[in-house]
Amino acid sequence: MYDRLKGFRDFYPGEQSARREVTDTIESAAHRYGFREVATPALERTRMYTDKSGEEIESELYSFVDQGGRDVAMTPELTPTVARMVVARGQELSKPIKWFSTQPFWRYEQVQQGRFREFYQTNIDVFGSSEPEADAEVLTVMADALTGLGLTGEDFEFRVSHRDILGGLVRALATDPEGVDIDAVLRAVDKRAKIDEAEYLTLLAEAGLDRGTAREFDDLIAGVDTVADLDVVAEAGGEDVESAVSNLRNVLAAAEDFGAGEFCEVSLTTARGLDYYTGVVFECFDSTGNVSRSIFGGGRYDDLIESFGGQPTPAVGVAPGHATLKLLCQRAGVWPVEELTTDYYVLTVGDTRAEAARIARELRDLGHVVETDVVDRGFGGQLGYADSINAETTVIVGEQDLANDEVTIKDMERGDQTQVPVDEFPPESGRPTYEDYE
Amino acid sequence: MYDRLKGFRDFYPGEQSARREVTDTIESAAHRYGFREVATPALERTRMYTDKSGEEIESELYSFVDQGGRDVAMTPELTPTVARMVVARGQELSKPIKWFSTQPFWRYEQVQQGRFREFYQTNIDVFGSSEPEADAEVLTVMADALTGLGLTGEDFEFRVSHRDILGGLVRALATDPEGVDIDAVLRAVDKRAKIDEAEYLTLLAEAGLDRGTAREFDDLIAGVDTVADLDVVAEAGGEDVESAVSNLRNVLAAAEDFGAGEFCEVSLTTARGLDYYTGVVFECFDSTGNVSRSIFGGGRYDDLIESFGGQPTPAVGVAPGHATLKLLCQRAGVWPVEELTTDYYVLTVGDTRAEAARIARELRDLGHVVETDVVDRGFGGQLGYADSINAETTVIVGEQDLANDEVTIKDMERGDQTQVPVDEFPPESGRPTYEDYE
Repeated sequence: MYDRLKGFRDFYPGEQSARREVTDTIESAAHRYGFREVATPALERTRMYTDKSGEEIESELYSFVDQGGRDVAMTPELTPTVARMVVARGQELSKPIKWFSTQPFWRYEQVQQGRFREFYQTNIDVFGSSEPEADAEVLTVMADALTGLGLTGEDFEFRVSHRDILGGLVRALATDPEGVDIDAVLRAVDKRAKIDEAEYLTLLAEAGLDRGTAREFDDLIAGVDTVADLDVVAEAGGEDVESAVSNLRNVLAAAEDFGAGEFCEVSLTTARGLDYYTGVVFECFDSTGNVSRSIFGGGRYDDLIESFGGQPTPAVGVAPGHATLKLLCQRAGVWPVEELTTDYYVLTVGDTRAEAARIARELRDLGHVVETDVVDRGFGGQLGYADSINAETTVIVGEQDLANDEVTIKDMERGDQTQVPVDEFPPESGRPTYEDYE
Repeated sequence: MYDRLKGFRDFYPGEQSARREVTDTIESAAHRYGFREVATPALERTRMYTDKSGEEIESELYSFVDQGGRDVAMTPELTPTVARMVVARGQELSKPIKWFSTQPFWRYEQVQQGRFREFYQTNIDVFGSSEPEADAEVLTVMADALTGLGLTGEDFEFRVSHRDILGGLVRALATDPEGVDIDAVLRAVDKRAKIDEAEYLTLLAEAGLDRGTAREFDDLIAGVDTVADLDVVAEAGGEDVESAVSNLRNVLAAAEDFGAGEFCEVSLTTARGLDYYTGVVFECFDSTGNVSRSIFGGGRYDDLIESFGGQPTPAVGVAPGHATLKLLCQRAGVWPVEELTTDYYVLTVGDTRAEAARIARELRDLGHVVETDVVDRGFGGQLGYADSINAETTVIVGEQDLANDEVTIKDMERGDQTQVPVDEFPPESGRPTYEDYE
């Protein structure tokens, strides 16, 4: 009768328990590094996006005029919002500001595998540090998050790049550097793996690079596989590029010290599509190539806070999207099992509700997940329901048993059961199962 | 430069950590009763609300036409969405269906204390049971949640009512029952405490009750303070009312068995404002009256699933709003302290980054919150930052100390410090502090 909107998803309990486990793992990694949770609005002024994010986001905005006549948009990403928050309280917050949050975002895009109109991201950002340790910490948090999910260095790689290397190279190689639109070149590089060569060269030409320069530029960036290869690029690019290469090397060295070195590779064909990025940028890929799109990306956006009216405040962040991350986890066989788990079902036979409720309450006080009958089922119906919610143990509270001061503990997998004195159940601690009494 | 929208809020880390603690407490209570988390879209078809929820919600909708020409609305409440989800998979889900979720919702309302245009609720619902145990379980989950927050029976009360008692009374008392708009009467009762008597009587008159009947009706419902008082009402109302009174008594008896009896009071002047409610309804109030508005409400909506095109499926739910709950917690002095907590700051002096990173990593592996320098500060700067994030212990990793195979453990509150062999720090488990080494 009412249908769900295309590109929007309902998450039922089995799938949601897996999603919650993954979100908790990511947030827990960020939390252990001292990133603090923030929560932010779902609506912002539309111009916050149209001013800064680039035309691609603009065409995909869920924007409208609210009842008070304001041009508003459902947030398509978090970065502008946290930038606004840093500007609003910049002076009183001690630096570095380290924030995370997990939320849905909205873009009117073509729906396809791993891409939805409502999508969830965990954003992890550091404000107030231009040091390579900040970039490296963000990479390391993500490495910890992914290994925490059960992924290994065989499963994923961080392709680390530097936009000033790319921009500096273009300026050094171009016959007319002033005539080149550097942002357009970076957007072309960002699309490089997704389009064919002719299209790529056309984009570079439109950005102001003649065919020869475009080829030279592409040969240089595509030729870099290791940190050592950066020497050639530094030589070709001059002073600005040398300084960017040095910064990139420092970030990788810090990532090595922090424990994320094994996951990082240099990849100058990585550029990121959003115009606000500066400096180091990176993307996470499936090492096996089975998931072809990037799993997530991030990088520096040192100029955004100032462009939002704040004090100059360097920043670096990452925003793993949960949909592509799920594809990677599934490919690697580490996506959590999508099923309900229940510690106890407390079954009533006859008029034993009060005693059953007492037992259920004490089990819950021990922290366990406990269900009781709320639909007035008989014995078989309750047992079937206990089975359907994967109850590990059923505690049968029957009138007969209670007359003998006993309850029955049933192991739901084995089907075995035994009687236990009711005044000893549950014990004051632990997680009593059939095995404790057999 | 960019301002936040009116009625929308940014939550910075201190406040957010308190909110997270409260949300976790509520969700954990629901989880222990076997309620399962779901996640739902922020946008739905507009007509899902205009068809069912009543005109009040309709005038407050954030609705617009999306890029595909669909009439869509930002969800003003969860109930229609979960009803849609139950209809979509009703056959394959085992009953009872017990779901919870915490999310923001949006209504274009007058902003005031405890009321915002973007507001957060935890929805807790049972589908597929008309038994009093289901109503009682929802009340008990909320009692556990509130006592889990540190509130007591002195702080809050559940005012429990039954819409069929109110409706049945109106039909029994009215001279022309067919000419009375029962929903309008219930909306008037819902507003009773917020408007003056003349206005209330006008609403009842507009609903089709003459002055005498209105007074008689109001005297009856206002005269009920205890379960025993329900006898008078049952007598005045005839068979339908008797059956509703019996249901209300059964719900209160089950709540007593489940452990929530002490928090429940009968209050027939409670009615709830949404038209889809049926049967038992309830609201939570501050017992001291300091917070004058209801903290949250809930109740039965037995007809909604069928009206959404599903099989007849009774339902009962509750939706604590986090803003009014915060007012109650603050009044009672149990709102969590809004501050950052940090277990360790690992401070580097000289070129000790690799060793400091090793120590930080091992402390994190033990589950602790650990920060290190990412802004290239000196000794004093790092110590000041460690203080600003309320680090409990600072581990000083200095070149000098390392040359002696030692690190320094500093208690940040007392200021005391001591040297510890670096190859013994951190130990393999626990939460090492200065006191372990003094």
